[in-house]
Amino acid sequence: MLISSAFDSGNIEVLDARSPEIRLAIRPDEGGNHYQWFHFRITGAKGQALSLRIENAGGASYPKGWEDYQACVSGDRQTWTRTATRYDNGVLIIDLVPAGDSVWLAYFAPYSHERHLDLVAKSSLHSDVAYRRLGATLDGRDLDLLRVGHGPRPAWIIARQHPGESMAEWLMEGLLARVLDDSDPVARALREAWTLYAVPNMNPDGAARGHLRNNAAGANLNREWAEPSLERSPEVQLVRAEMERTGVAFFLDVHGDEALPYNFIAGAEGIPSWSEEMASRQGDFLEALLKASPDFQTRHGYPQAAPGKANLAMATNWVGERFGCLSMTLEQPFKDTADTPRPEGWSPARAGQLGRAVLEALHQTHL
Amino acid sequence: MLISSAFDSGNIEVLDARSPEIRLAIRPDEGGNHYQWFHFRITGAKGQALSLRIENAGGASYPKGWEDYQACVSGDRQTWTRTATRYDNGVLIIDLVPAGDSVWLAYFAPYSHERHLDLVAKSSLHSDVAYRRLGATLDGRDLDLLRVGHGPRPAWIIARQHPGESMAEWLMEGLLARVLDDSDPVARALREAWTLYAVPNMNPDGAARGHLRNNAAGANLNREWAEPSLERSPEVQLVRAEMERTGVAFFLDVHGDEALPYNFIAGAEGIPSWSEEMASRQGDFLEALLKASPDFQTRHGYPQAAPGKANLAMATNWVGERFGCLSMTLEQPFKDTADTPRPEGWSPARAGQLGRAVLEALHQTHL
Amino acid sequence: MLISSAFDSGNIEVLDARSPEIRLAIRPDEGGNHYQWFHFRITGAKGQALSLRIENAGGASYPKGWEDYQACVSGDRQTWTRTATRYDNGVLIIDLVPAGDSVWLAYFAPYSHERHLDLVAKSSLHSDVAYRRLGATLDGRDLDLLRVGHGPRPAWIIARQHPGESMAEWLMEGLLARVLDDSDPVARALREAWTLYAVPNMNPDGAARGHLRNNAAGANLNREWAEPSLERSPEVQLVRAEMERTGVAFFLDVHGDEALPYNFIAGAEGIPSWSEEMASRQGDFLEALLKASPDFQTRHGYPQAAPGKANLAMATNWVGERFGCLSMTLEQPFKDTADTPRPEGWSPARAGQLGRAVLEALHQTHL
Amino acid sequence: MLISSAFDSGNIEVLDARSPEIRLAIRPDEGGNHYQWFHFRITGAKGQALSLRIENAGGASYPKGWEDYQACVSGDRQTWTRTATRYDNGVLIIDLVPAGDSVWLAYFAPYSHERHLDLVAKSSLHSDVAYRRLGATLDGRDLDLLRVGHGPRPAWIIARQHPGESMAEWLMEGLLARVLDDSDPVARALREAWTLYAVPNMNPDGAARGHLRNNAAGANLNREWAEPSLERSPEVQLVRAEMERTGVAFFLDVHGDEALPYNFIAGAEGIPSWSEEMASRQGDFLEALLKASPDFQTRHGYPQAAPGKANLAMATNWVGERFGCLSMTLEQPFKDTADTPRPEGWSPARAGQLGRAVLEALHQTHL
Repeated sequence: MLISSAFDSGNIEVLDARSPEIRLAIRPDEGGNHYQWFHFRITGAKGQALSLRIENAGGASYPKGWEDYQACVSGDRQTWTRTATRYDNGVLIIDLVPAGDSVWLAYFAPYSHERHLDLVAKSSLHSDVAYRRLGATLDGRDLDLLRVGHGPRPAWIIARQHPGESMAEWLMEGLLARVLDDSDPVARALREAWTLYAVPNMNPDGAARGHLRNNAAGANLNREWAEPSLERSPEVQLVRAEMERTGVAFFLDVHGDEALPYNFIAGAEGIPSWSEEMASRQGDFLEALLKASPDFQTRHGYPQAAPGKANLAMATNWVGERFGCLSMTLEQPFKDTADTPRPEGWSPARAGQLGRAVLEALHQTHL
Repeated sequence: MLISSAFDSGNIEVLDARSPEIRLAIRPDEGGNHYQWFHFRITGAKGQALSLRIENAGGASYPKGWEDYQACVSGDRQTWTRTATRYDNGVLIIDLVPAGDSVWLAYFAPYSHERHLDLVAKSSLHSDVAYRRLGATLDGRDLDLLRVGHGPRPAWIIARQHPGESMAEWLMEGLLARVLDDSDPVARALREAWTLYAVPNMNPDGAARGHLRNNAAGANLNREWAEPSLERSPEVQLVRAEMERTGVAFFLDVHGDEALPYNFIAGAEGIPSWSEEMASRQGDFLEALLKASPDFQTRHGYPQAAPGKANLAMATNWVGERFGCLSMTLEQPFKDTADTPRPEGWSPARAGQLGRAVLEALHQTHL
Repeated sequence: MLISSAFDSGNIEVLDARSPEIRLAIRPDEGGNHYQWFHFRITGAKGQALSLRIENAGGASYPKGWEDYQACVSGDRQTWTRTATRYDNGVLIIDLVPAGDSVWLAYFAPYSHERHLDLVAKSSLHSDVAYRRLGATLDGRDLDLLRVGHGPRPAWIIARQHPGESMAEWLMEGLLARVLDDSDPVARALREAWTLYAVPNMNPDGAARGHLRNNAAGANLNREWAEPSLERSPEVQLVRAEMERTGVAFFLDVHGDEALPYNFIAGAEGIPSWSEEMASRQGDFLEALLKASPDFQTRHGYPQAAPGKANLAMATNWVGERFGCLSMTLEQPFKDTADTPRPEGWSPARAGQLGRAVLEALHQTHL
Repeated sequence: MLISSAFDSGNIEVLDARSPEIRLAIRPDEGGNHYQWFHFRITGAKGQALSLRIENAGGASYPKGWEDYQACVSGDRQTWTRTATRYDNGVLIIDLVPAGDSVWLAYFAPYSHERHLDLVAKSSLHSDVAYRRLGATLDGRDLDLLRVGHGPRPAWIIARQHPGESMAEWLMEGLLARVLDDSDPVARALREAWTLYAVPNMNPDGAARGHLRNNAAGANLNREWAEPSLERSPEVQLVRAEMERTGVAFFLDVHGDEALPYNFIAGAEGIPSWSEEMASRQGDFLEALLKASPDFQTRHGYPQAAPGKANLAMATNWVGERFGCLSMTLEQPFKDTADTPRPEGWSPARAGQLGRAVLEALHQTHL
C-alpha cells in the first residue's frame, strides 16, 4: 500500500503507512497559515479495509468543515463519490476499502490546470469571445481572462481566489458552457446586454501546488485587494488594473465554504458607500437566484459586517466600494446543501448547474 | 438527378424532374383536407443549380406559411441549415446547388419514429420515470406515455397532435433531458412537486406517413377532444381516459405554427368556465415563460375566442373546461423568431431550449 | 401486458396474450415461403415472469437455427444482451422477466432504415467517397451505393440480400468506419489500390418489412442473379448493371447463417470456370482472414458444390463466373462463435470488428 | 504578445520578444547534455505575422531533426496541425500568423501527466487488468505498470524513456484501447496467450519537466540498464526488478526519432548471445508488422551494431541479453513517414494506429 501526491493539486504527507491505520497530515500552504485541501492517490490496497487518519485535521483552517463532511473518492478520476468519513478528537478518519489498486481521494473533485487550459482554449474559439492574458503569476503561469459578449455593461466573474475551492472553477465551466451555447436565448441576450469578463482561476499557482487559500508567495488573495503588489499578489493587481480599464457594473467572486452546508451570497453591506439602492439591487439578484436554483438559499450565511466595517482588502468589498456596483461573493459547500441533499454531495455537475443559474439570475435582474 | 421520399415522414410527389426546373407537389394527408409538410431526398445532383418548384404550394393548408419561409436542408441528416426559398404566384421555389450527391430537404428538421422510440427508451430507464403504453394507434403503433416524477400535482404535456409540427417533439426531447438531469435542482424540485405525464408524440401514424395535421384515419386530432372515438381518434380517446384517471392540474399542448414567426401561447379564454382566476394563473405562467426564454413573446399570437365561444373539440379548451386547470397551447414557428433571429432559423436545438424554459416557467408559477 | 411490432423491421403475431404463457407466431415474408426473423416490443410487464412461446418456430426456414439459440433483448435499444431461450417440440420459448415496462426482443440486434440512411449520409461526406443511387426498390426506396477510394481495382461488397441478417449491415458499418479512417494506413492503402463499391443494404424493403429473406415481391434476391428483372428483383438487376459498368476484381456477399455457430466463407467452387488459380486466390484470402480475425474459421461451413454444379442464380457464383474474380459469401452466426464465445453472443460490435478484419485480409491478399 | 511555458511539459526561454522576430531558446534538460523538445503558448498575437526563431537549435541533440521538420500548432489543445518551419544556419524559424489570441506550439503533440493518469485510471478498471505501482520516481511520481491479460507468456512494452518522445505514449494509448476492447478477437486472443506488462510512461518526471531525454537526475534512462540505481535511475531499476520477477518473452521499447522520417525497428543484433533463432523471430515480427501497418517499413533505420558490440546499457540490448527473448526498439518519426505522408504529419491518431498494428504483429508472430 502506498500513498502519493506528486501531481497537480496533490497534497498529503504520510506520517506512517505501515499498518491499515494510516497516519497522514495535510501540508500547509506556502505561508504556513492555512491548510485543509487534500488530494492523494492510494495504490496497492484493493479490497483492504483502510483507516486513513488525517491527524492534523484539528488544526486546519476550518475545523468545523470536518463535521458531517464526507471525503470524495474516485477510481476513474471522472466520477467522484462520497465515502464514509468521521471527525473525532481533532482527527479526520476516512474508512475505505479501495475497489481497485489505484484510487484517488480529494477534499473535493479536483479541477486541474490542464483542464483549466482546455476550458480556456475551447471557450476562446467561440466567435463572441476574446482571450486576454492579464500577466504572469509568481510561478510564471498565465493569468487568463475571457471576454465574452459585446454588450454595453461590464460584468466581472472571478473564481478560485482560494485555490482549494475547486467547485468555483466547476461552476465557471458550467457558466461558460451556457453563455456560449448559441441555441440558448438567455445566453444570447446576456451577450448583447453585457460584456462578461471571466477569470476561471484567479490563483493557478495555488491550485497546482495543492493549496487551500494562498498563492505562491503565501498571500491570501482575498485579503490583497486594498493594496495588491506585483511581488506578493500580482493576480489581484492585474485584475484590478483591468477592471479600472473596463469598469465594473456587476461583480461576482466565486468561492467554496468549508463549514456551511449551503450555497449563499455574502454581500458588501459593510462598505462605506453602501446604500439602499445597492441593497435593493442585491435583493433583486438574490430573489432571482433563489428562483433560478433550488440549491441556492438566503437563510444561512455569514453575519453581515457592521456599517462601514467591511474589510476593503476583500474583493467584493473593494469592487463594491470602488465601482458602486452590485458586488457579491458566492459561496458553495464542500459538503452538500442541507435542504436539497444528494448521494454524491455537492458535485462538479451541481456546481455547473449553479453557474447556469447565476446567468439566469443576471439575466432576470435589471441592474 | 432523382427525388425520393420512401422513408419515415417522407412526402413529395415528382411531377417532372427532367430539367433543372423540377416540378413537385406535396401529397395531401389522409383525409385530403391538409398538406404542407414535405421531406425528400435529392440524389445525383451534386453541384447542379436546381430550381425545385412545389407547384401546389398555393393550395396548402397555410399559404401564409410560405411567405418569408426558408426550407431546411441537410447533408448528414444531423445538421439542418436554411436555404434560399421564395414563394411566387402560388409556387414555392427552392433554389439549391446540392453540396453532395445525396441531400435532404424538409419543411422542418424531421423527428423520426426511430428517434422517438430511442427517446422513450432512454427516458424510461431513469429511476423516477414509469413507462405506460396507453394503447394502439390505427396503424398499430404504441401510444407512449412517460410518467415522470412523484409529486402530488398532475401536469400533462403532449406534443405533435399535428405530426408535421416536428419541432414539438424536439421541444419534448429538450424538456425530458432537463427534467431527468439529476444535477439540475429545478428538475428535482419539479419531480417532487408534480407528476409529469408526457406524450412526446400524440400522432405517430401521421408522423411516419409524412402528414401535416391528420392521423391515419384522416382525423385532425385537435378537433376530436369533444367526442373522440377508438375508430377515428384513438390517440385522443386514450389520452382523455388516462387524464380522467390522473386528473390534470396543468396542461400544455405543444404545436408549430406555419405562418407566425413567433413562439406564443394560445389559451382557453373562450371556454364557458373561464374565470379571472384562470386568467391570473395564465398570466403568471406567461410572465414566467417570458422571463425564462427571450425566444418567447406575448405580443403576437392568435386572436382570442370570444367568451364562451371556444371550440371544445380542441385539446386546450376541452382540458381547461373539464379540469378547470391552466390549459394552453404552445406554438413554435416553422420559420424563425422575428425578434431574435438566427442564421439556422428556428431549430431542434432552440426548440429543446424552449422545452427547458417551459420547465423553468412551470417551476416559477405557483398554480 | 401488450406486444407490438408496428415499427421498422417489426415482426410478430400475437395469438394469445392473456396469460403469462404468451402464444406468438412469426409472420411469413411476402411470398410466404420464409420466416424466422422476429422483432417486437413488450410493454407493461415489468417484473412479470413471462414465457413467450413462438409456436410456429418449427416451421421456420431453419429450425436448426433455434437449437442453442438465445434471443436478443434490450431496454434502451442500444445495448442488446442474450436471454434464456429454449427450443422444445417445434416451439421457441423465451423465458423473460422484463426489467422495465418497455423492452425489446429481436432475433438479432436490428439495424433500422434510419440508421442505414445515417450511415450512408455520414460516409458520403468523406472526401474519398462518392454516393450513387442505383435506382428504386419495389417499395420506392433508394438502392444506395457508396464508391470508396480511387484505386485501379474494383472491389464489390454487398450486404443484407437477406434482410433479416442484420449482422451483415453491422459488419458493413464497422468496415466503412475503418476504411474511412484517415489515420489508418491500411485504409489509405486500400483506397489507393482499390475502388470499393459498397452496398450496405441490398434489400431495404425486406428489412423495413421485417422479412427474413425476401424482398417486397417475395423474391429471394440471392436466387435472382441469373435472370433478375426490374419487376421482381430490381435490387439485383441494378447492382448487376453497375457491376458490368465497373468490372469486379473482388466480390464479397455478406450474410448471416441461422444454424451454424461460426463465421465462415462459402466460395464459388462449383462454377464452370473454377480454376486452380481461383482456388489459390481464395485460399490466400481465407488464410489472411484467419490471421486477421480469431472469430473467423475454416473448419466448419457449407458443403462445396460439385464441380460445375454451382447455382448461378446466387450472387457469389454468378459474379465469380461472370468476372472470373475472387467471389465469396461471408456468413456470420445468429448465435455465437462456438470457438470464441462471449456472454453477449455474436453482436453488432463483433460484426463490426469482422468488417475491419475483412479489410485487413483484402489488404494482405495480392489478387 | 507574450510567450509562456509554465505548464506540463512546457519548455522555452524567451531571449527577446520585443519585435515580430522573436528570439527564443530551448532550455536544456537537467544534466545539460540534451535539448530539443519545446512546448509553449503564444498569447496576444492574433493575426500578427510572427517569426519565431529558436536560436540555439543548431546545438540541439539532433540538428538533423530540424531538416524538413514542421512545428506542431494548436488552438484548442486537441487538434494539432503542422505549420511552416525552416532551419537556417543553426536557427529554427517558425513563421506563424496566430489564428487566435492563445495558440500553442510544440515539438510534437504533448501528452500530459494528467492524461497519463486518466489513461492508467481508465485502463485499470477493465476486469482483465491489474494496476501495479512499481515505485517512486525522483520527483515522487508513481511509476505506473498495467498488467493486462492472463496468458502464460510475459510481454513487456514500455514507452517514453525519453520523455520528449510523446508519440510513444500516444502509441501506448492506441495499443491499450485495442487490447482492452472486448469486441476485438485479436485483443481477446492476445490476453489469453500473453500477459502484457505495459509502462505507458517510463519517465514521468522528464515529461512534466519538458525534457527531451533525461530524468530528474539528468540520467538518460536508456543508458542505465546495465547498472541502474535508485539514486540516479530508479525508473529502470524498478522495471528491471519487476522483469526479473515476471520473466520476459517479448520486449518492445517505444521511442521517437528526431531525424529519420520513418517508423522502424532497431533490434539487439549486437548482443553477445545474438543467434540465428533470435534473428528469425525478429524477422517474423518485422514481416508481421510490415503487413499490419503500411506506415511501418524496414528499409531505413539505424546501422546495426557489430556482433558483440551492443551497448548493454540500452534497454533493448540488456533485455535481449538477459532474457534471450525478442527485444526491440520501435522508433517513430517526429516529422512524418516519407513513404506515406499526410498533411498533419506523424500524429497522435497515427501513433495510436501503429500501437494497434503492434498488437496485430504480436498476435501473428509465433514466438
